[in-house]
Amino acid sequence: MNSHQDVPALASRAMACVNSERLINMQRQLASFGMRSDGGVSREALTPTEQQARQWLFSLFAGSQYQWVIDDAANLLVRRAGTCPELAPVMTGSHIDTQPVGGWLDGAYGVMAGLEVLHALDDAGFQTRRAIEVMVWTNEEGSRFSPGAMGSSAFSQPDRLLGFLAVKDNSGHQFETARDAALQATPAAQRTPLGHPVHAYIEAHIEQGPVMERGGYSLGIVSSIQGVRWYEVTVHGNSAHAGTTPLNARQDALLTAATMVSQLGAAAADRNDDALRLTVGWFEVTPGSINTIAERVTFSIDVRHPQESELVAMQGVLDRVLVRHQGTCTHEVRLLMQRSPTKFDDHVLSVLSSAVAATGVPHCRLGSGAFHDAMYLADCCPAAMLFVPSIHGISHNAAENTDSVDLVAGARALTFALATLACN
Amino acid sequence: MNSHQDVPALASRAMACVNSERLINMQRQLASFGMRSDGGVSREALTPTEQQARQWLFSLFAGSQYQWVIDDAANLLVRRAGTCPELAPVMTGSHIDTQPVGGWLDGAYGVMAGLEVLHALDDAGFQTRRAIEVMVWTNEEGSRFSPGAMGSSAFSQPDRLLGFLAVKDNSGHQFETARDAALQATPAAQRTPLGHPVHAYIEAHIEQGPVMERGGYSLGIVSSIQGVRWYEVTVHGNSAHAGTTPLNARQDALLTAATMVSQLGAAAADRNDDALRLTVGWFEVTPGSINTIAERVTFSIDVRHPQESELVAMQGVLDRVLVRHQGTCTHEVRLLMQRSPTKFDDHVLSVLSSAVAATGVPHCRLGSGAFHDAMYLADCCPAAMLFVPSIHGISHNAAENTDSVDLVAGARALTFALATLACN
Repeated sequence: MNSHQDVPALASRAMACVNSERLINMQRQLASFGMRSDGGVSREALTPTEQQARQWLFSLFAGSQYQWVIDDAANLLVRRAGTCPELAPVMTGSHIDTQPVGGWLDGAYGVMAGLEVLHALDDAGFQTRRAIEVMVWTNEEGSRFSPGAMGSSAFSQPDRLLGFLAVKDNSGHQFETARDAALQATPAAQRTPLGHPVHAYIEAHIEQGPVMERGGYSLGIVSSIQGVRWYEVTVHGNSAHAGTTPLNARQDALLTAATMVSQLGAAAADRNDDALRLTVGWFEVTPGSINTIAERVTFSIDVRHPQESELVAMQGVLDRVLVRHQGTCTHEVRLLMQRSPTKFDDHVLSVLSSAVAATGVPHCRLGSGAFHDAMYLADCCPAAMLFVPSIHGISHNAAENTDSVDLVAGARALTFALATLACN
Repeated sequence: MNSHQDVPALASRAMACVNSERLINMQRQLASFGMRSDGGVSREALTPTEQQARQWLFSLFAGSQYQWVIDDAANLLVRRAGTCPELAPVMTGSHIDTQPVGGWLDGAYGVMAGLEVLHALDDAGFQTRRAIEVMVWTNEEGSRFSPGAMGSSAFSQPDRLLGFLAVKDNSGHQFETARDAALQATPAAQRTPLGHPVHAYIEAHIEQGPVMERGGYSLGIVSSIQGVRWYEVTVHGNSAHAGTTPLNARQDALLTAATMVSQLGAAAADRNDDALRLTVGWFEVTPGSINTIAERVTFSIDVRHPQESELVAMQGVLDRVLVRHQGTCTHEVRLLMQRSPTKFDDHVLSVLSSAVAATGVPHCRLGSGAFHDAMYLADCCPAAMLFVPSIHGISHNAAENTDSVDLVAGARALTFALATLACN
């Protein structure tokens, strides 16, 4: 079986074995780890709650065709053996950690869809040439330990791990300690070094935005992830008494910073570019007292665009807006992070095109506004992503949801695509 | 002695007994309680440090002519007996609590100047008809327990105390518990209920602004305290992903709030009114994450003006600026506090005029931009204030300072004025 000519037919047969009830039940069971009364899920990276969820996952695949592996970043994967062990595996997966309060899908959907692929292949009695791996990446969210995507970025470039080990969460717990606890939580998993050859990687995920719902699409082939630059701006003023200091004698860091933010927002809107994103999400004031003129304000700027040239142009806009305020207060700008746009692999994208066409549901091609583990996988292997829509575009929120018909369509397309790749 | 005709001569004689070395030494000794290596003083209200300072003060005046009294708000006073115990006393004083990091003078100067008046009267062998009281008001700053001026406002209107007792500091310590500890720290002080008749109140204080230094004045007769309104504005947006949400689909609470603040600042500057103060000193963002559009921002507005009509006009400006932003985000405004301008008593002001004239130093008449305990005393007795200049207008800061010549001039004028009032 599994001759080259039979692949589309075999992939279709495996796709037909996707079981919607099994998929939704697995997804609901995973959500029970950290479920809140409002329907949200609190399962931050490497917490006891996340470790219990990992142990539950581990209990699901125990047959002789399955092998569990955990690496130095506590990335946990289940491997379904292929007939040619010398060939690099095909990988799927995502993350099961959440924001402090997240929804029930997010990355968890990508892991559950991957596991349903394994079930479907079993049900179809389908032996692939290459092994198929479903990966649970460590700490994608970055809300507990910063930065995010620690697991996938360290998989892609293992020397990054050393810098992550010393990171502490807000309670002073160190990433290394939490990582060690996670390594011990699944002792039967085989411990391996970080990184191994991967033939191709496909990550399924919810869109986390409104584009697909607005267009009426059930599936989205993600051809790129937009580029991003994160800045930290610090404005230095002079702390003084709110009652005694005349307006024209002030160096008011808060008024200056607020005007910078307002003008940045206006400058971004003026570019009239649907693809541009500019966000100021945190803004911290020292001393932050009602009757004291602010001494210092620090705020963030998150700029994203699918074109690197536009990120460069926005750097110019930012410089021009900030420089206007020199004289009253001083300021400095620090580049916290930059990442050029990620272009996904043409071959993997063409396999995904065949897969979504095989499902027969309405689909589109789009870029991702959010980061994903696939961004780092694209640095070390051919990669792409598959989106299902988010109702009202809501994510990182108790109201996060996707129609179950779309969740099932995603698992079907993923089965078709992985089966195809694993037979080549 | 002390016939009505002799009063100016007696007051001059007492004034001549002000001892500059004794005053500056007392001021320095008080500053040793909470002194920091940078020259700043950390002595927040009702902390162990402040209680030790109270005990030290208590140790300074132990003669038979002195009586220590503490009331239900832990306001602590020393009374120098008068010859006519049936007459209401003349009161001076201020506060010895500081901001988390304050300077060595601030309210502490008003207490030390008052104590030097008692020493000078003793040295002059001067018996006044009315008792003279030097008051240490509890929690003027309001940085540990909010609101400020708890002691003086409760003295003026005792039913306010009940509302203060339950207030907690940021560590969860309750005002009532801290107050009880302060009551026990000076057990020899006589416990009295809050509030008693006061013939007149004069508070000496540093200016905390640049007006007197710029004019070359050593003393300032404070005829009024400007009015104030404190507002809290809450802007409600919609939390969403910074990477996936198009700019025109956002309800960005931070961008909206920053634009409100920027426009409020511009509107205040446009009024071109030297007497107007408008300050946004705190600005808190939820969730405050670099890659999440802000769900909610809460910021303060502190507006001050010597004319009530201008405070009313600024309320209109505020309403007009905020209403422009309805539609994208919603907002609500809460009035946290309002206080009409305080006009000090003409008779006390005229006594202060004679006193500063008697010192022979350059002096002016001005309004106070900051609140003081005298603001609440003006509600229950004839009151006024006396300022000494602040070098570079700096206060609430390790660099807070005043030329010692001016500190001594203030104590001399205060001696003349209190002696005069206490003989009538």
